[in-house]
Amino acid sequence: MDSENIHVPGFLASGVSAGIKETGARDLSLIYSTMPARAAGVFTTNAFKAAPVLVSMERIKSGRAQAILTNSGNANAATGAAGYQDALDMSKSLSSYMKIKDDLVLVASTGVIGHRLPVEKINRSIPAVVKGLRPDGIPEAEAAIMTTDRFPKMAYQKRYIADREISICGIAKGAGMIQPDMATMLAYAMTDADIDSVALGKAFRYAVERSFNAASVDGCMSTNDTAIILANGCAGNRMIRDGSQSFRIFRDMVCEILMKLAKDMVRDGEGATKAIEIVVTEARTRGEAKKIAYAIANSNLVKTAFFGGDPNWGRIIAAAGAIGIPLPVDKVRLSFEDVPVFRHGRGIDSNLLSLKTIMEQEEIKIVFRVGMGTKDWRVFTSDLGFEYIKINAHYHT
Amino acid sequence: MDSENIHVPGFLASGVSAGIKETGARDLSLIYSTMPARAAGVFTTNAFKAAPVLVSMERIKSGRAQAILTNSGNANAATGAAGYQDALDMSKSLSSYMKIKDDLVLVASTGVIGHRLPVEKINRSIPAVVKGLRPDGIPEAEAAIMTTDRFPKMAYQKRYIADREISICGIAKGAGMIQPDMATMLAYAMTDADIDSVALGKAFRYAVERSFNAASVDGCMSTNDTAIILANGCAGNRMIRDGSQSFRIFRDMVCEILMKLAKDMVRDGEGATKAIEIVVTEARTRGEAKKIAYAIANSNLVKTAFFGGDPNWGRIIAAAGAIGIPLPVDKVRLSFEDVPVFRHGRGIDSNLLSLKTIMEQEEIKIVFRVGMGTKDWRVFTSDLGFEYIKINAHYHT
Repeated sequence: MDSENIHVPGFLASGVSAGIKETGARDLSLIYSTMPARAAGVFTTNAFKAAPVLVSMERIKSGRAQAILTNSGNANAATGAAGYQDALDMSKSLSSYMKIKDDLVLVASTGVIGHRLPVEKINRSIPAVVKGLRPDGIPEAEAAIMTTDRFPKMAYQKRYIADREISICGIAKGAGMIQPDMATMLAYAMTDADIDSVALGKAFRYAVERSFNAASVDGCMSTNDTAIILANGCAGNRMIRDGSQSFRIFRDMVCEILMKLAKDMVRDGEGATKAIEIVVTEARTRGEAKKIAYAIANSNLVKTAFFGGDPNWGRIIAAAGAIGIPLPVDKVRLSFEDVPVFRHGRGIDSNLLSLKTIMEQEEIKIVFRVGMGTKDWRVFTSDLGFEYIKINAHYHT
Repeated sequence: MDSENIHVPGFLASGVSAGIKETGARDLSLIYSTMPARAAGVFTTNAFKAAPVLVSMERIKSGRAQAILTNSGNANAATGAAGYQDALDMSKSLSSYMKIKDDLVLVASTGVIGHRLPVEKINRSIPAVVKGLRPDGIPEAEAAIMTTDRFPKMAYQKRYIADREISICGIAKGAGMIQPDMATMLAYAMTDADIDSVALGKAFRYAVERSFNAASVDGCMSTNDTAIILANGCAGNRMIRDGSQSFRIFRDMVCEILMKLAKDMVRDGEGATKAIEIVVTEARTRGEAKKIAYAIANSNLVKTAFFGGDPNWGRIIAAAGAIGIPLPVDKVRLSFEDVPVFRHGRGIDSNLLSLKTIMEQEEIKIVFRVGMGTKDWRVFTSDLGFEYIKINAHYHT
């Protein structure tokens, strides 16, 4: 992807330094639609939601938004009533300066938690971030939401839907479940599609469930996780409605965009040396398939085995067996890529050489067949190595 | 505790080398009651139960047992029907040689999984392990059940109950939740108390729930976890029955014994540098208190922060907030030992110096007050450091 060419009609973006990050790196990001857009969002379910999350969750209920203002370097989380006021203040600064309705501004923050947001620094930088708005400013907006990310995460697609070329661009920050600052994930998608609110919300939730929620694993969302899509209708297509063929094409396009971002987040897990895809099939329900997949993905014993290059299938079956689902031991089958390692209630020793080769791959797929039904689920995770400890033991509050 | 003096009337114990461990260390352990004893057990809930677990679970239903035969070095797990036969065979070798009823023999195995048990080595060593039986053989029996344990785990108490001196001794192997070979935990308690079956089972389950189940965290039991108590009545006390004062004294005594073993297992977690006690109070239900305590104890971000000596309370509240219980943000209070760090929905910055001192302690208590009710729970866990990765990445199947 040539980041020079990322551009979604009707959207402008910008990223500047407001001096929140001590390094002086970009830390204030603005995404702006030249006209009010339809909007949908998925937010953390954490009980300790950060102040900007509370503000944006409330505002997006209207189904419309025009700007997303994000700061990095400070999460404005666990900051009480004063923090909530700070989130309103940064929004108000932008809406006053741009002369747009305040309730069309969505806000997000990411960084250290428990410290008051330096809101005056943000307010002082509003003119600069607004003046920086450009059609090709998306990479700068992305840079300004990053914290410990090792590389930017962007995805872009154009496709004909209902006789018009529709663009979707997505940007994200975060590193799967293994990010120092609470695994905060931010993701924004922009599209020029004209799509009604119900269909937009449905498509976005469908895509988030299969991408970010399958990568961050375990429902352990941080205090700040936020995913938002804006659709401004600039493409002039016949409006996409739920249930139509156009809807399914659009939904799958959003899904592909978010999936790329989610996989990038897993690959960026600090210290991650391998990306692991865990596929659970033949479960009785999708819920059980998920539960098994997450149990495997979350096992430190499984993750460290992958780091060590050890095809330790015993840890995988033990992790799956421990969650209380009455698995039929004789029917369960486990394979690494297409090499079977467990069936009929016992391990298969003969494939050790093939397994060693597979364990050296950077991306490894594990398939766990439950033998109870027809439902499946997949999650993405990474291994657990020394770098994870190093970074997370010394990231200070 | 002077291990020379551990002795429970009517019990003999022994530990020898059968050649299962490549090092030649002791790997066959026998505990024997000179008369059939009342017995109760708690076993792994893992769907992939090892063969010896299946055998012992079935036999202990009778409420009686006379011997516990354990091998280390091989878990006899994921070995299918052949493995089940191997477990029966090792039991039969012992019962034939000792001329006791086969169904009074309980068996257990711990070690690598997925490999057939070298049952002929065990059978050949039965005469030696029987001949080694001595009243003061408990430390040898303990040595023979250990795998990667850095130190033996034994606890011993005598107390007057119902006018007789009652002894209880407990031995265990395992290292909390962070053991390479699937966190397998074995624990055996021996007592000369005369106690009826119902009361014995009730006291033992009560104690296991508050000790091992609070230390191993998350219900993630291995394929082989086994805890057994034998009570042979040699003390000649008036029989202890459920609901009596004697029962409560006995139950608390068992609880103290198992608690010591559980704490030793946490301390022995490979690479653990700190023992962390997580106390959750003021929950609506005991179930919710448990869920919150486990969420905190299982968070890699929390564990690595403790390893790094960082009083990162943000990770603790985020872990608790992520599990779907609607916590009242303004009522939740969190403290490290007696130093408050979070209340009224925000962090308390002023105590950083006291916190640094606390974080240097080897044992740290965290108190999370939910502010919703009166129920509580506590779990024990350890930090997550480099040693954990080192050991677990290179422990091969």
